[in-house]
Amino acid sequence: MGYGAYIIDLDGTMYRGDEPIEFASEFIEALRAKHVPYLFITNNSSKTQAQVSDKLQQMNIHATPEHVFTSSMATAKYIAQMKQNARCFVIGEEGLYDALEREGHIITDDTCDFVVVGIDRDINYEKLSIACRLVREGAVFISTNADVAIPTERGLEPGNGALTSVITVSTGQKPIFIGKPESIIMNQGLEKLGSHREATLVVGDNYQTDILAGINAGIDTLMVFTGVTPYTDYPAFEKKPTFHIQNLSEWLHAI
Amino acid sequence: MGYGAYIIDLDGTMYRGDEPIEFASEFIEALRAKHVPYLFITNNSSKTQAQVSDKLQQMNIHATPEHVFTSSMATAKYIAQMKQNARCFVIGEEGLYDALEREGHIITDDTCDFVVVGIDRDINYEKLSIACRLVREGAVFISTNADVAIPTERGLEPGNGALTSVITVSTGQKPIFIGKPESIIMNQGLEKLGSHREATLVVGDNYQTDILAGINAGIDTLMVFTGVTPYTDYPAFEKKPTFHIQNLSEWLHAI
Repeated sequence: MGYGAYIIDLDGTMYRGDEPIEFASEFIEALRAKHVPYLFITNNSSKTQAQVSDKLQQMNIHATPEHVFTSSMATAKYIAQMKQNARCFVIGEEGLYDALEREGHIITDDTCDFVVVGIDRDINYEKLSIACRLVREGAVFISTNADVAIPTERGLEPGNGALTSVITVSTGQKPIFIGKPESIIMNQGLEKLGSHREATLVVGDNYQTDILAGINAGIDTLMVFTGVTPYTDYPAFEKKPTFHIQNLSEWLHAI
Repeated sequence: MGYGAYIIDLDGTMYRGDEPIEFASEFIEALRAKHVPYLFITNNSSKTQAQVSDKLQQMNIHATPEHVFTSSMATAKYIAQMKQNARCFVIGEEGLYDALEREGHIITDDTCDFVVVGIDRDINYEKLSIACRLVREGAVFISTNADVAIPTERGLEPGNGALTSVITVSTGQKPIFIGKPESIIMNQGLEKLGSHREATLVVGDNYQTDILAGINAGIDTLMVFTGVTPYTDYPAFEKKPTFHIQNLSEWLHAI
């Protein structure tokens, strides 16, 4: 063991809503004590890097903006690799606009290179209609992540994958998804960490996103049962995580 | 030939947007002259019976409200067959609210028997979120129609089937679709006309909805190439319409 770098999920792994998860703070302190680099990777496209690190700091989980990598940032970087200063029509929230603009892209409602979709609690018919028209006109269709539902205090709410399906179904065009379980976001995370695939460990609670992202990208995985996937699902996983624990305290010795 | 009753599509068959299609008025006059009963069946759930017949009258196409049967009306009737005075959470426009209320159903934002989805140009995240929650709680999930796109002056806009997919993808529950090409709306149309399946002819321009609805319901079909499906698609149809013509003038002699 003794992994040289960690990629760590947030929701269900570090916190639940606004509450830190037990041993999350100690886990990060153990990494810091050993000078092991870590990067939080989240599918949540709605918040900026700084908003996410502020939230972690408030929970006594050490984080700077540089420790945070969102599906919005991965999307902006992915687009930049295809085209610099790309024209993008955007459905999304602050985190997506912020990430695209920081990467030098141009936000437009008009003819564009990319239609970019992230979670948008202000979604409306007009936005969906413009997105469909632009995809039909040939814009590359990109979606930050395929999550179908988001756990909230009100229960499960529609996730970005569900909103994205309006455009997919209407146009018959499938989007390029960027977030977990896709390898795109994981490969970018490794690059940001400057770590080798074999020396890195992915930590997460969601089998369908975090763990499959690690498996798809060929990175070892540590599954915790503090979030959405219950332990009772474990026997049914066709591909098992490299390690699994009930909570983060069980891994402190291995850091 | 000499069919005893006609089920006739509207958009692409009787009119395009706000313009009547050539020979539509003459076609209906020929039916009236021979006292052949006819019923307009439309997947459009947004308008009331009276709004649709007014539109036809303005184009000199003879219609009373009784000549119009919409997917909203079929949906309201279908629900009534399952439960009288059912509690319904509704995503939709005036035509759907009107049809449900006329059938005696109760519109609610709270615990309900049915989640009913029709085209809604005022769609928002809150409505989608409530619909997902109620479907997860066990409400029967019904959608007026599966059309993925609507032709408008601005081009193709998202149809009800595309909006419905948000709930399908988020909850993993498939809806019961009521409109064409489903048989549900056609069987109700036959009942409303009081005509036998074998003695009835379905007239329409859209292969995927009108013609397949006739084929699925075992009713003969007359396809016209004045709407969305081009004649060049004809060779590829696995199941052919009973008859096909370029425009309605070619059928006047057969009425």
